Amino acid sequence: MSRTTDGLANAIGYAFDDPGLLDAAVTHRSAGSHNNERLEFLGDAVLGHVVAEWLYSAFPDAPEGQLSRLRAILVKRETLADIARKLDVGEYLRLGSGELKSGGFRRDSILADALEAVLGGILLDGGFDACRDCIHRLFAGRLDGLSAADELKDPKTRLQEYLQSRKLALPVYAMHTVSGKAHRQQFVVECRIDALSTATTGNGSSRRKAEQAAADNMLEQLGVSR
Amino acid sequence: MSRTTDGLANAIGYAFDDPGLLDAAVTHRSAGSHNNERLEFLGDAVLGHVVAEWLYSAFPDAPEGQLSRLRAILVKRETLADIARKLDVGEYLRLGSGELKSGGFRRDSILADALEAVLGGILLDGGFDACRDCIHRLFAGRLDGLSAADELKDPKTRLQEYLQSRKLALPVYAMHTVSGKAHRQQFVVECRIDALSTATTGNGSSRRKAEQAAADNMLEQLGVSR
Repeated sequence: MSRTTDGLANAIGYAFDDPGLLDAAVTHRSAGSHNNERLEFLGDAVLGHVVAEWLYSAFPDAPEGQLSRLRAILVKRETLADIARKLDVGEYLRLGSGELKSGGFRRDSILADALEAVLGGILLDGGFDACRDCIHRLFAGRLDGLSAADELKDPKTRLQEYLQSRKLALPVYAMHTVSGKAHRQQFVVECRIDALSTATTGNGSSRRKAEQAAADNMLEQLGVSR
Repeated sequence: MSRTTDGLANAIGYAFDDPGLLDAAVTHRSAGSHNNERLEFLGDAVLGHVVAEWLYSAFPDAPEGQLSRLRAILVKRETLADIARKLDVGEYLRLGSGELKSGGFRRDSILADALEAVLGGILLDGGFDACRDCIHRLFAGRLDGLSAADELKDPKTRLQEYLQSRKLALPVYAMHTVSGKAHRQQFVVECRIDALSTATTGNGSSRRKAEQAAADNMLEQLGVSR
């Protein structure tokens, strides 16, 4: 049996008018139909907005592509799970018995989803300003750490530098498939590193974006941290 | 030479304190470095949030997957371009000479991006409430049209029904590649319709999501309208 969520509300620094929203936010779909999936949808959206606005002001000279990459770093699953762990969200999760047994309270995806759902709950309970304040508080340390120039580099550049530092040949990008009508095409590109006998794919609305996505997946696969 | 943007502000129904923001919002990157790309990043984010919140209340019983699909319909390029056309955004666009000659003011992607940038400009100029009101006004007709049950169906179901209505065999879904570490995998699935000699791919963080994406691309390719 999980604890009451009062302690979690304290950790977050937000007092719910309707604590039922916080209860729903920590309820995984394995625990029943009254779960956090709809709140997660809402929280994901408000988080994307607040972080976008924040980056827009914090990096007045960064082009759109850099802002997108910085946002992806801030809202990625690992970052959210890390913040959720600092708030002890795992202690409050309501999981079905299967997830309980398999240690679901420690899993990144479940923790990240619950954190987003909590943000969605705050949005419904207290409105946008309260939710934004809360996001600023929870993410402040992360934003401060983002100024390093390295994080502004795109995945293809980072992959190239990683390989060069190891005296390895550069990756080969090859178009795999193109689907969809003109002006709405989807490109799938393969990124191959022969020296490491490994390949990844990435897709996007342009060849360039698909190459960046494939490079990003390769960095992920190689375990290159940001 | 494009017109002053006063007429556009009137059409949108929002008076800018700083009309320079609206000027920037209609400036395509082909027209110079002081363009609308950063505002578009902001507008895309606030639009995603406002539409998510709206759908959350409008469809209290819809599960998360349906809310995501409905949002994708509301914020897709064609919808945004359509709204931009009704506002005559094309008349106010500032384009470089190459884009001008090739008719960029009629292109969906340029119109959609400009509309998002306008929303980003309103967010900066008037704050969140003003921007949300504006989005509600511009998208009201679209949301009303969304209640049809058909739009709540997922792409695989819609593709299956489309093929059955034409007495064609069902599509075959085949795993193409899996990349990434455990719990962070990316799946690429192929959707093949032998009777039509056509195939598409889709990717996602689960096999199920990748299949839905491949089916969605197939519907797009077959020109099946929503």
